[in-house]
Order: sequence, then C-alpha cells, then structure tokens
Amino acid sequence: MSSARDPVWVVTIGDELLRGEIVDSNKSHLSQRMLALELESTRHVSVPDDPRAMEEVLREAAARARVVLVSGGLGPTRDDLTTEIAARTFGRKLVRDAESLEQIRAFFRRFNREMAENNAKQADFPEGAEILPNPIGTAPGFMLDVPAPSTGEPSTQLFFMPGVPRELYRMLDEQVVPRISARLGRGRVVRARLLRTFGIGESNLDRMLADLAQADADAVLGFRTQFPDNLVRILVRAADERAAETRLDELEREVRARLGDLVVATGEQKLEEAVAALLRERKRTIAVAESLTGGLVASRLTDVPGSSAYLLEGVVAYANDAKVRALGVSPESLKQHGAVSEPVARQMAEGARRNAGADIGLATTGIAGPEGGSAEKPVGTLWLALADGAGTIAHRYQLMTDRARNKELASQLALDWVRRRLLGLPISAETFPRLISAKEPAK
Amino acid sequence: MSSARDPVWVVTIGDELLRGEIVDSNKSHLSQRMLALELESTRHVSVPDDPRAMEEVLREAAARARVVLVSGGLGPTRDDLTTEIAARTFGRKLVRDAESLEQIRAFFRRFNREMAENNAKQADFPEGAEILPNPIGTAPGFMLDVPAPSTGEPSTQLFFMPGVPRELYRMLDEQVVPRISARLGRGRVVRARLLRTFGIGESNLDRMLADLAQADADAVLGFRTQFPDNLVRILVRAADERAAETRLDELEREVRARLGDLVVATGEQKLEEAVAALLRERKRTIAVAESLTGGLVASRLTDVPGSSAYLLEGVVAYANDAKVRALGVSPESLKQHGAVSEPVARQMAEGARRNAGADIGLATTGIAGPEGGSAEKPVGTLWLALADGAGTIAHRYQLMTDRARNKELASQLALDWVRRRLLGLPISAETFPRLISAKEPAK
Repeated sequence: MSSARDPVWVVTIGDELLRGEIVDSNKSHLSQRMLALELESTRHVSVPDDPRAMEEVLREAAARARVVLVSGGLGPTRDDLTTEIAARTFGRKLVRDAESLEQIRAFFRRFNREMAENNAKQADFPEGAEILPNPIGTAPGFMLDVPAPSTGEPSTQLFFMPGVPRELYRMLDEQVVPRISARLGRGRVVRARLLRTFGIGESNLDRMLADLAQADADAVLGFRTQFPDNLVRILVRAADERAAETRLDELEREVRARLGDLVVATGEQKLEEAVAALLRERKRTIAVAESLTGGLVASRLTDVPGSSAYLLEGVVAYANDAKVRALGVSPESLKQHGAVSEPVARQMAEGARRNAGADIGLATTGIAGPEGGSAEKPVGTLWLALADGAGTIAHRYQLMTDRARNKELASQLALDWVRRRLLGLPISAETFPRLISAKEPAK
Repeated sequence: MSSARDPVWVVTIGDELLRGEIVDSNKSHLSQRMLALELESTRHVSVPDDPRAMEEVLREAAARARVVLVSGGLGPTRDDLTTEIAARTFGRKLVRDAESLEQIRAFFRRFNREMAENNAKQADFPEGAEILPNPIGTAPGFMLDVPAPSTGEPSTQLFFMPGVPRELYRMLDEQVVPRISARLGRGRVVRARLLRTFGIGESNLDRMLADLAQADADAVLGFRTQFPDNLVRILVRAADERAAETRLDELEREVRARLGDLVVATGEQKLEEAVAALLRERKRTIAVAESLTGGLVASRLTDVPGSSAYLLEGVVAYANDAKVRALGVSPESLKQHGAVSEPVARQMAEGARRNAGADIGLATTGIAGPEGGSAEKPVGTLWLALADGAGTIAHRYQLMTDRARNKELASQLALDWVRRRLLGLPISAETFPRLISAKEPAK
C-alpha cells in the first residue's frame, strides 16, 4: 500500500491561513489545474510560517507525492522562510542568482523606486533549483527535483510559487503546467465543458447519464451542486484540441438529448443571464410582482447589464393594501383565499403585466418563514403565476429550506418559468421532484 | 521536539475539495474560533472521500494534536464515510442511537416527507462517542476521546461535524467550543466582540484605533474587510466572564466614541437587520423606489424575518413610464433633467412614500454600468433620496466599482441613510470619503 506514491500534494504556507484570517482559494485553483492534466490531488495541507512545521510537511510531501505544489512564503520579509527551509530540508546550499537579482531591481525601477535591501533575498535559491520567472511580481519561484525514497522510482518535483493569487496563477500556467505536462509525456490535451441544470438532483443526474462515459476511458462526467443548480461537467482527453472539441460537442448533444429542458445554462452563465438573453432575442418585456421573493427576482434580472431593455417594472407587494392598489388584486380574493393563494397569485401576475404593458407578468406569493405558517399553508408554501398573451398559469410548491434559501429557490423557479415559457417548454410542478414537492396538482 | 503535541489540527473531508470544485471556507472559520480560545491551529489538512486517506489523516491527527476538528462526510450517501472510518481507525464498533434516529425522522415529518432508508445511517456512531445534536440538519456530529500516544499525557478530543457551513458553525459554537473551553479549564476566559463599520477604510480604522490596545497585553484589536463593510474585532482575555465583559464594554465604548456614527452594526448582524430593528422599535414604515439598485434594497429588507411589519411596498421602476405611472414622477422632470437627476430621485422617494402611505420613502437612481454613462453622468453616478415627515433630502455619489458592487454599495448607502435618519444622525455625501467621492455638494 505504501509503495504507490500520491500523484499530487498541495501545500500552502502562511500564518494568516492558520489563523483563519483569509480563505485559501489557491488550493482549489491549483487542484483544478492538476485535474486538467489528469492528476488528482490527494492531500491539501496548510502550515504556519514556522520552520519546524514547514520542514515536516516538505519532508512528508516529498516522500509521499510525485508532484508537490507549494505556495506562499517567498516574500521579502523576515516571516518569509520557504526558500531557506526548502534548502535546509533537502540539504542544499543557498545560492544568489545574479539574473534574478537584476530583474527584481528592474521591477522596482519601473515604478521609479529603489529596491529595498531585504528584497535581495528573493534572488536566493537552493543549489540546483530551476528558477521559475515571475513577470508580474518580485518573487521568482523555483523547482526542486528530489530523488524518490526508493530506487527505480521517478523523483519528486517540488514547485515553489508565490502566494499572491495572480502571480501564482500565471506562474502555474506558464511555468509549472508545461513542466509537469512534458514529464508526463502524454502528448494529449484535456478539455472540459460545464452544463447547469435546475430541477433534478445529483443522484438522478448520475442515474440518467452515468453510462455515457463508462465505455470511454477518455471521457469523464462529473456532478456537483451549486445551490440551487446541479452542474454536469464533461471532461475529455484527446490527441489534439480539435478532436477534444468534437468529442465534447458529441457528448454535450447526448447529455442535452437525455436531460432536455433541465439544462438551463452553459458554463458560468447564470439563469438570469440565460433568461435575459432570451428576452432580448425574442424582444419580449416583463413585469414582476413579488411577495415571497421580496425584490430578489427583479434584483437578479437587473444584475444583467442592459436589463432596462426588457424589465419594465417590478412591484414588491408585501402589504395587502399594496397588492390591491399597485396590482389590482381584488380585496374579496384576499379576504376569501388569503394573500398566499392561487387567485391572488394569478391577479398579481395579470396586474403587473397590465399595469406595465409588458408581454409577461410574473408573480410570487408565499410564506418564506421562519414565522407565519399554518397547518393548511406551512412555511415554504409558494404560489407562482405567469401571465402572458396565451393566458395565465399558476402552481403551488412546497419549499423546505430556510428563509434565505426559500427566497433564492423561489426566484430560481420563477426565472425558470420564464425560460420555459419563452422556449415553449412545459411548466409543471412535477418537473422538480427533488427540490420541492407539489402539494396540489398542476392546473 | 516530538513530545509536545500540536494544539489543534483542522481536517476537512470531501472529493469536491481535492478536485478544487469548491473553496473551503470552513477551515478558516474553525481556526478563527479556536484563536478566540487562545488555541492555534498548526495544520489544516484536506483529504478525499477515500477510506485509506481518511484513516491515515485521522491516525496522524490523533497522534499529533490535542484537539482535532473534522468536518464533512456525515451525509446519507454512499460517499459519506467519515463515521465508519472513524470507528474503524480507533477500533470502535458502530452503534445505532435510537434518539438520534427519531430526531432525523422528525426532521422529515416537519416537511411532510418520509425519511429515506439511507438517512438511518446518520444515527450510527462509534461506540463511546458523545453525540453532538444538529438542530438544523439531519446529520448529528460526535466527539471521540482517544488516549494519548504516551501515558500521562491528556487524551485527544476529535470532533466530527457536518460540512454544511451553517450546520457546522452552529454545532461548533453550541457543542464544540464549550467542551474545549471546559477542558482547558484555564483560569482565564477569552471573549471577542465584532463591530461593523461602513464608510471608513481599514488603514484609517487602524490609525484611529491602534493605540487603544497597545498598552494592554490582554486586549487585541483586529481589522478586516467584508465588502462593503470594514470590521473591527475586539478580543480580551480576563480572569472570568464578568471581567472580560466589563473590559469589552469599556473598549467598545471607547471605539464607538472615536468612530461615532460609522459603526453600523454589531456582531454578525447585517445592516438590513439593524435597520429592520430600528424600524420596528420606532414603529415606522417604509416604501422604496429603486432604479439603479433594481430591487436589491427591497430584497435585503425582506431577507429579515417579519419584514412585512415595516416594508409596505417596493417599486422597481426601470422604465421612465413606470417612474411616471407607479411613482408619479413628472414627465417634464424626466425630459428636462433625465432619469438620473436630483428632481427625479426626489419625486421617486416622495411618490413611493405617498402611494404606500409610509413614514419613509427611499429612492435610488443612477447608472450601474458597464454601459450607459456619459461625460456629465459617468457610469457609477448615483442619486439617493429620502422623504419623510421632515422633508426630502437628496445627494449625488460617484461609485467606482463594477455593476454588481455598484448595486451592492448603493443599497448599503441607501440602508445606511435610513439608519442615520432614524437615529437623528447627519446624512452627508462627505461621510464616505474612501468609498465614494461626491461630485456635488450636499444639499
């Protein structure tokens, strides 16, 4: 068991990490890049700027992993010990590199500043290290090649990089990834694509798609939740860029054929952006009337640049009086059915549409919680309604999270209704079996 | 050197962490809380949902640290292995806990749903574990006490908690911190208090406050940015709870005396919660008219439970037509001054107040970007207006970030105006020198 070394360890160094003063996003970035090289990170470790802790972790990592990515501790201050400790741990002398020193001086000259003397130590490297240039900062990185614990095995490559994210990311892409890639000698490219789904759980996605990648060692499907969406990642390996894109296109087509209208967007596009694009493309306008979502639907729509082209008006009608006055809801309906009811949802959507002269009227009413529920209408009850030229539809949902996420989920459902309507897709409460259970049949 | 064990290790478990799919903020949160107990975390480790990797890290952590905080892998799926591996690693049997099982069933009943059979395993615990209740999720945590590697030393406490942040944070504060604290049994307690400021930069905070803590080794002031707020943390150590609270009160009074009305809230309270509390306390109602913020002000106000008590109505008036029809803005003003102007901002605030019959009318109009700016009204131009029984005030600001943060900053300014108005504090464009520069004098 102990003979097979781990593919990659990621080590980050800095007191601020261990004190919890900053959230360390470098580790996830480094691991993502490794994954694109088909290398799994099997351990993330962070230690403080402490010589003993640093030496311990460098020794462990070199013995147990084939590639070690280290970030942090290359700065000019007394706390920045990484280079010195790396040299000591692996029995190397520190050697000053004249060319690096000149580049650091030049960096300061560009800003009309003198290099402080403590910056000179950033030109010191363990003997035998390969220097990794840093075109946008003063701290170059370096690579150490350390013999494997037992003979016959390949050595361990340790890459030391700065902790400043933009310097790290650039050095990683320009200096580190090519070196690892060359050593792997695979001559293959890896490409990924991301599809966003809404209304289907991770395990159902897995069930519907798992076989797609199973026959093909060079294609991998991955699933992950980003509330309230579930993401499908398609990753392929191929001989070249073009073959990879072709294979991605094929797989995306097949995934879409199976999931149909559950795919709401691609890549980092958000649902509101997809809806905005559809509204613009089809030259439709919208007005929203919000009770449960309290302005969140309008706010998401206005997060998209240029939203004034299609969002004519939003009304946050929390008070019954506002529902009557601003949206034309009938006081009798409010009295007879309550504010959280089908007739009121319908009248809100119709009123918003009529007042603004919009193509689409969209309404939410419900009980976000934590208070205000009853046996008949528990916390999480949501009525959605959409009115357009073809008439008005309304459904009841039962949300089951906390206030903030109930609002978020309701706004996501509401926006998805618009997407579905614009694409001519069905809207039914049964579309979302895992997220929300419908309490009444669709009408 | 190897005899002194580390105070705290933090271990997080999950494939998604090692694939870099999510940024792990749990580790920094856990370390922050330990720091308040004067316990330094000396190592953060993350491993995938892999039995061998999990067993390795649990064994290492138990041997090398006195407190081990573990999060993740307590869910109901096949991938969630933490409990099983913990039992195996420390030679315990798995035992089902009837009371926990009943609580999990009850959790589902609250939403009128059946518990799925795989959830039952969340009621299994290693023999001898102390169960840590989870009042807001289905996965209870547990604590294992493992003997120290050599005799005479105190045992290691391993706390196993869910990975879902809100469940983790609550369990940490209610179950874990008190247990660690009790065991430390130091004659001293550590207490912290957090003040949120808005409208002053970190370096100015430091300059205004740094001397406060310098004379006193048992008091520490810390600063940190959480856009758009800057936070001041006061940490004191004292002989007992009461002495600590007294010292905190003194320091808080002094900080407030120096910062005055820049302190907007305390602890985790958000500005909208502070504003909501003031509105309720003073029995005032509010109506908002939003253009630039597009519903975000209303959405933030409705994030607070019970907001129907004070938020009467919100209008998102993006189109000029909506400003005229729904808010009574004069078409002449729109034509003469444009939608982003003082007269229109004033009329929006007054119209919202009048329509809803609210005590306060609040309005935002401006250019969020990235398009739509001009030489006279560049991107980031914001007019805020507030109308109440005493009249109407309006100011112009110049925001200088991207669309999303311009919206956020504008909503923060707008809510801060309400806070200031309710407290009788001055409202002036000069209050916020670092965040936004006023282009015109206040009126």
